[in-house]
Amino acid sequence: MADAQGESFFERALANLAGAWRDIAAGAARTVGLNGAASLPHRPEAWRALMAECLAARGGEVSARLRAAELGQAYLELEGDEKRDFLEVLAHDFATDQEQVIERITAYVEATDAAARMAAEDDLRRALVPPRVKLLTQFNALPEGVKFLADLRADLLRIEGEDPYLRGLERDLRDLLESWFDVGFLDLRRITWDSAASLLEKLIAYEAVHEIQSWQDLRNRLDSDRRLYALFHPRMPEEPLAFVEVALVKGMADSIQALLDESAPAVAAEAVDTAIFYSISNTQKGLQGISFGDYLIKRVVQQLSHDLPRLKSFATLSPVPGLRRWLDRAGASTIAALLSEEEQGGVRALGGSDQLPEALLAILTRPDWWQDPVTATALKAPLLRLCTFYFLERRPAGDPIDPVARFHLRNGARLERINWLGDTSANGLRQSAGLMVNYRYIVDDIEENHEAYMQRGTIAMGPEVRTLAKSVRRIAA
Amino acid sequence: MADAQGESFFERALANLAGAWRDIAAGAARTVGLNGAASLPHRPEAWRALMAECLAARGGEVSARLRAAELGQAYLELEGDEKRDFLEVLAHDFATDQEQVIERITAYVEATDAAARMAAEDDLRRALVPPRVKLLTQFNALPEGVKFLADLRADLLRIEGEDPYLRGLERDLRDLLESWFDVGFLDLRRITWDSAASLLEKLIAYEAVHEIQSWQDLRNRLDSDRRLYALFHPRMPEEPLAFVEVALVKGMADSIQALLDESAPAVAAEAVDTAIFYSISNTQKGLQGISFGDYLIKRVVQQLSHDLPRLKSFATLSPVPGLRRWLDRAGASTIAALLSEEEQGGVRALGGSDQLPEALLAILTRPDWWQDPVTATALKAPLLRLCTFYFLERRPAGDPIDPVARFHLRNGARLERINWLGDTSANGLRQSAGLMVNYRYIVDDIEENHEAYMQRGTIAMGPEVRTLAKSVRRIAA
Amino acid sequence: MADAQGESFFERALANLAGAWRDIAAGAARTVGLNGAASLPHRPEAWRALMAECLAARGGEVSARLRAAELGQAYLELEGDEKRDFLEVLAHDFATDQEQVIERITAYVEATDAAARMAAEDDLRRALVPPRVKLLTQFNALPEGVKFLADLRADLLRIEGEDPYLRGLERDLRDLLESWFDVGFLDLRRITWDSAASLLEKLIAYEAVHEIQSWQDLRNRLDSDRRLYALFHPRMPEEPLAFVEVALVKGMADSIQALLDESAPAVAAEAVDTAIFYSISNTQKGLQGISFGDYLIKRVVQQLSHDLPRLKSFATLSPVPGLRRWLDRAGASTIAALLSEEEQGGVRALGGSDQLPEALLAILTRPDWWQDPVTATALKAPLLRLCTFYFLERRPAGDPIDPVARFHLRNGARLERINWLGDTSANGLRQSAGLMVNYRYIVDDIEENHEAYMQRGTIAMGPEVRTLAKSVRRIAA
Amino acid sequence: MADAQGESFFERALANLAGAWRDIAAGAARTVGLNGAASLPHRPEAWRALMAECLAARGGEVSARLRAAELGQAYLELEGDEKRDFLEVLAHDFATDQEQVIERITAYVEATDAAARMAAEDDLRRALVPPRVKLLTQFNALPEGVKFLADLRADLLRIEGEDPYLRGLERDLRDLLESWFDVGFLDLRRITWDSAASLLEKLIAYEAVHEIQSWQDLRNRLDSDRRLYALFHPRMPEEPLAFVEVALVKGMADSIQALLDESAPAVAAEAVDTAIFYSISNTQKGLQGISFGDYLIKRVVQQLSHDLPRLKSFATLSPVPGLRRWLDRAGASTIAALLSEEEQGGVRALGGSDQLPEALLAILTRPDWWQDPVTATALKAPLLRLCTFYFLERRPAGDPIDPVARFHLRNGARLERINWLGDTSANGLRQSAGLMVNYRYIVDDIEENHEAYMQRGTIAMGPEVRTLAKSVRRIAA
Repeated sequence: MADAQGESFFERALANLAGAWRDIAAGAARTVGLNGAASLPHRPEAWRALMAECLAARGGEVSARLRAAELGQAYLELEGDEKRDFLEVLAHDFATDQEQVIERITAYVEATDAAARMAAEDDLRRALVPPRVKLLTQFNALPEGVKFLADLRADLLRIEGEDPYLRGLERDLRDLLESWFDVGFLDLRRITWDSAASLLEKLIAYEAVHEIQSWQDLRNRLDSDRRLYALFHPRMPEEPLAFVEVALVKGMADSIQALLDESAPAVAAEAVDTAIFYSISNTQKGLQGISFGDYLIKRVVQQLSHDLPRLKSFATLSPVPGLRRWLDRAGASTIAALLSEEEQGGVRALGGSDQLPEALLAILTRPDWWQDPVTATALKAPLLRLCTFYFLERRPAGDPIDPVARFHLRNGARLERINWLGDTSANGLRQSAGLMVNYRYIVDDIEENHEAYMQRGTIAMGPEVRTLAKSVRRIAA
Repeated sequence: MADAQGESFFERALANLAGAWRDIAAGAARTVGLNGAASLPHRPEAWRALMAECLAARGGEVSARLRAAELGQAYLELEGDEKRDFLEVLAHDFATDQEQVIERITAYVEATDAAARMAAEDDLRRALVPPRVKLLTQFNALPEGVKFLADLRADLLRIEGEDPYLRGLERDLRDLLESWFDVGFLDLRRITWDSAASLLEKLIAYEAVHEIQSWQDLRNRLDSDRRLYALFHPRMPEEPLAFVEVALVKGMADSIQALLDESAPAVAAEAVDTAIFYSISNTQKGLQGISFGDYLIKRVVQQLSHDLPRLKSFATLSPVPGLRRWLDRAGASTIAALLSEEEQGGVRALGGSDQLPEALLAILTRPDWWQDPVTATALKAPLLRLCTFYFLERRPAGDPIDPVARFHLRNGARLERINWLGDTSANGLRQSAGLMVNYRYIVDDIEENHEAYMQRGTIAMGPEVRTLAKSVRRIAA
Repeated sequence: MADAQGESFFERALANLAGAWRDIAAGAARTVGLNGAASLPHRPEAWRALMAECLAARGGEVSARLRAAELGQAYLELEGDEKRDFLEVLAHDFATDQEQVIERITAYVEATDAAARMAAEDDLRRALVPPRVKLLTQFNALPEGVKFLADLRADLLRIEGEDPYLRGLERDLRDLLESWFDVGFLDLRRITWDSAASLLEKLIAYEAVHEIQSWQDLRNRLDSDRRLYALFHPRMPEEPLAFVEVALVKGMADSIQALLDESAPAVAAEAVDTAIFYSISNTQKGLQGISFGDYLIKRVVQQLSHDLPRLKSFATLSPVPGLRRWLDRAGASTIAALLSEEEQGGVRALGGSDQLPEALLAILTRPDWWQDPVTATALKAPLLRLCTFYFLERRPAGDPIDPVARFHLRNGARLERINWLGDTSANGLRQSAGLMVNYRYIVDDIEENHEAYMQRGTIAMGPEVRTLAKSVRRIAA
Repeated sequence: MADAQGESFFERALANLAGAWRDIAAGAARTVGLNGAASLPHRPEAWRALMAECLAARGGEVSARLRAAELGQAYLELEGDEKRDFLEVLAHDFATDQEQVIERITAYVEATDAAARMAAEDDLRRALVPPRVKLLTQFNALPEGVKFLADLRADLLRIEGEDPYLRGLERDLRDLLESWFDVGFLDLRRITWDSAASLLEKLIAYEAVHEIQSWQDLRNRLDSDRRLYALFHPRMPEEPLAFVEVALVKGMADSIQALLDESAPAVAAEAVDTAIFYSISNTQKGLQGISFGDYLIKRVVQQLSHDLPRLKSFATLSPVPGLRRWLDRAGASTIAALLSEEEQGGVRALGGSDQLPEALLAILTRPDWWQDPVTATALKAPLLRLCTFYFLERRPAGDPIDPVARFHLRNGARLERINWLGDTSANGLRQSAGLMVNYRYIVDDIEENHEAYMQRGTIAMGPEVRTLAKSVRRIAA
């Protein structure tokens, strides 16, 4: 079994397990193969054979894992369609054995007492776990194995299309990752300016809500009146799974530009009474559908409550990402109903059109409409009312149109306030017509809000929004 | 929802999550209840209701987990039969829904194309996962949740008997733990005299093979010519899952008493050429059947090879725990066949009986027979031959009688040597008739040995044992 | 310059600096020499030459330090008188240059203006620093160099006798260590049962006040109602310099046996109101005269105040180590004055002597006198009074006789209470006639107490002791 | 002693010691005073009184240190001339007591035997240590006390001028810092992209040799083929004292622009044979004159030799910072002697002047002269010869003119090579006429080179430079 250099596959593999592979998976030495990983023929038959060996645990379970790692390494070196070919072999050739399933279904149906039924049930359950699941588990032998699997799922989500086998494989992987990324395993860590530059660099790359412009911008977000918390898996200690950025302020923040202003002085610790969650990002495409946001927010609320007892309220400063698109499609009658005669006249005049929707959209299309005091004044009340109406609208399933609203309301937050010109960035104007909202988490109300929302679709509101909603409902009625 | 003290369940719960519960589960403050955990009525109806709430995720998933933690805490306070009552509620009332299973079986059987079948298969698989599994997962919210679950399984193994529901629950738990304790998640750590006393204390308690007599004895086992490695789960950083004790020696060690002699000087680093694994212990009853030993040995071989390149061989010094029992039952003809006339005469004379088995057992029953040179000389060759024969005997399933042999041979080791008077402790004489054996792990041969053993039952042997085995086979033939 | 093996002295030295020497100094490999350290002739001429090379910084300062380390290593291998020889070379041959001193004195005396005088003063100061001081500093290149120097001073203190050169060297070393062990550099660390066994083992060895009997005893002293803090130097992270043992109790503790009782349950955290410092130990002989105790106590008071706000008072439970010796010498008239007629009669009867001192000492010599209720009752009031009188007695310098009293009173504590039968161990009876006292640190009073004690010799007292003192003074007057 | 808030100075002080002051000194909360530190009158009398209290250790040594910390805090709040006032009080009013010095001089001179002389010597030495030194030591109670003292010295160096008292104070401080910053106490740490951003930010600020342009530039200097090591004091763990940047390359690097090119690929680990030290920076002005560079280089050579055994040579890539200034002043005859007729003609033509020095300098003043092939070719040989001659020139003290040369030659390096157009940055052209040199550290030769240089001024040279030097000497002779 020893090769020319007098080392066995196993020996090198053992040596590599903690060493080279770690580098390899880290991308540091992609060209160094294991047992000629580079030379593992990029052909389905070769993969299939190696997969079968892994599943048969040839040479023992430890050896099988080393082979699985080799296979995983080979996968990392594939490109484009080759990846699809590899995944198809895995998905098709190692799916459940239907004959066996049918056999066990028969046994289950025929079981006569509890003990026999339980045993048959267990047998059937195991028959329904495709062999490929074992192989997915074996990939955990790779250094950064969980990261490998998460990335594998990201590949699948991109590739799978309607292929039922690939989708089945993707579902298997999702189930495995959901179990392994159970929130009970995650660490909450505060990130500061004393954190590793290599980690901070990832935050810059991952932040999706309000892009981090520079190291200086990031530093500002880690200032004494800021907090940044991230969730980590113990086997991916250098990869944040999700992170939230918090500003400690006095009163409820109403403008993201004000929050991110690098030249603004830090708020004095003794003045702070509110924590504003102004950005929440998930980072791993391969963990799509496995939600960390709700848990992250509540853990951070708990942590901040403990560390800073003077904090009186916890709220987000969030975009209304579907507003503008909804406005684009809103009917003339809806808009007319929500605007007074005078307001309608104003919009028509400013928008240069007799048609109300066209006039409104014409204004909103101008990049600097909000900087003109007359226009801004004319639009403020109408847009706040339209936005309120938008929040009250439902999808066919009965839940709100706005995805951010769905997330926070489901978590038990209440819609606290709508902020006029809360985000005047190009993106804020394009998506949210410049509006931002605060969702407020009142710890005592979270359960009740959640239940009311889940069972009756009730949207919890703060006083300001409630007043707006009443007037909108009256008008719309 | 706020109680008399003006704090909601949730608020306290959040506060407790990282705080009090951690203590509670650690047993430090068993009497501090959560939401009156102490006052949670110890009645099946109360448990059932709370379990149902957890599964319904009332108040949101984070709240559900807090409730599950409360439930887990209540369980920790139960005693004796109450635990059984609790587990029965969980096992019976939250088992799979048979009607749903039958429904989905029907759908599966009727599926006509691959996509439909895949979807039906997935539905069926999910229907076969009993709701109680979700609750088990939610217990992970407990501080030291994985330890809680492992201990829960230890309780189940003790209690379950033949109850099919309890056994089903125990199997569910086993599957969950097997996934969560995948070796890919485990850390190998070297334990030294610089490790925490609280950890070392656990080793003293857990060591099962060669009891640690005192702190001084432990210190000796952590000396410069010793190594002790343990596997840890990242969520149980203070609980070794399995550990192995290694002596670095010159030549293959043949006596456990010599190894454990506190007064013996440490072997000089430059003389060392062999690593002897003289004790391997699993520590968690609740992880029974989830094997770490094979992985632990091979990881330590790898680690030692890397750290100490001068090491030339890796072997165990192991007991032969079934030998004496086997001797007790060995027939007169077997014994007679393996002893020369002269040897038979010697045994009869020393044992004071004409019957060969009785004479032999009479000698072995004397506590100090091995200290008498004449007796020892008379028994040496016969016992070595009998022991070799014992290793060659098979259970009906075709594998060796000796459980330690089964473990190491399956791992790919070879039976290297049988050591006369290798363990003269009371236990060593009682179980192994004073013999010990070396199983040797030759990295290059592990895969081949494993395959030969798994497929053909072949036992790999070192030259000495092979010679013995040949003579024994010739005699026995 | 390269030797037979092709490595230069320097190369090996560099390699050794962080490697072998560390081991060497740790005693792990005493036989491995540096540049044949083992073969450095154990002769004064060889040492002298190497010392001169170090001081001349031959080969540059880094090389000089490597040579100094070699020299230090050679010293570690010396035994008995050889050490004295070595130290004498260092002390005599590298003392100050008198001629140079006289020259600079002349320059100093003749300096006419401030600038010239300052320069001359600086020159003179430098001339007064003996060359050996530079060499002492160079020894800091040794791994654990500061530990080496502390141990060197311990050797000197043992050896020096009246030799003025050796005493000078010892003074130089003391000055250097005093600067390097400035309390501003020290770390206060809490030691727990989770600390390294190798560290805990040292506490067992170093504890001088109330010997630690076993690992179980130590564990009891690290229980939830105990604290143990130690001071460390950053370059001796494994060597505690001084440590204090604290019991968290309800009310002022009055018995050391009760405190150290392993079977006593831990005091509930919510009942605790007092921290009792029941043992303070200095560990390094070579740091004799460099005091850490005052600083240690006050840092721990601060730390505990912060961690446990419910603590209301901080006090010691201390021996009265000079009491018994003082009683042995106390005159009959002193004793008679402090005892009533009735008490005198009782003592005479129990002691079986007409002579009061003899009768009293006869009783105290019986090992179990305190277990006899009659005797104990008869002695209680007399001994408390005698002890109070003892505290009021002064040495010629005006300070108390009792060394422990001097330490705590100087620190600003007050003499709070005298505890009858506070220490009934053999040692407690032999030194302190079974009494113990509490010195209490009231943060607000510390400065005032210190000043009153330093300037006027005033002893601050708690109410009980003040009452005792008044009656004693009245009697004695 | 308690103030209005019911807290004593001491209590607050204790509380502050580890808390607020740490922040204060960190500049985080400059406005929070201690005992009204802000209100400590900024008047010499107030400082003098508090200094006297510190020295008298009123209230005990721990209290004195707290007062010293308060004083230090007050100092931190002073501005401009106030600092000078403060330092003058400290320098003048707490200088040595001349009368006492004279007294002890007398005692010393009159001492008749060794013991008396030793004692008198010790007394005199102590009398020569000004009281202010004790106060400097007490400042070590400040959080980051050593940083405070280093910064204090930086202030003094800026302020002192010719004032003999201030210079005396600065010398005292230097002696103290030299003892406390002994290299034996320093930690060598490798800095990587995984280091804290707050630390990396300091490197960007401190790098003085080749300015770090951006985070991207820094990242490039921490790439896989780079190393950056820094020295730290255990009490200033976030402040590098000195750091060195190293490039791992194949062959001796000859151009700093090539080394710092962010777009250049990393050198493959297996090709590397040379470590190039291309930047060494000292960071603390207050530690001026306390040299870390020699030690840093040799420790890094040792570390790299250990980590990367394939490294064959260690060299710097250094500027020739005095070359251009020397050329400006070089006489016509010197230049003429070193250039051939033809070369002289070329320079005259290109420089547009008949005068050789003027012509040469005219060329070198053009910012892009080196980009013109004709000019570059014409100047290469002449400049290399002139540079060699420059290295051979001596200052009156006998050592080389070039400061970088003095540093490395004294350390035992040899002048290996002169690199044409090694630094074509504006700064490199202005100072070094675009040349750079390699100083090579050959471990075996360091001691000999150092001794030859120190005793005879011999400059060790590599073969190329030796050849150049020979030709230059021949010409110049």
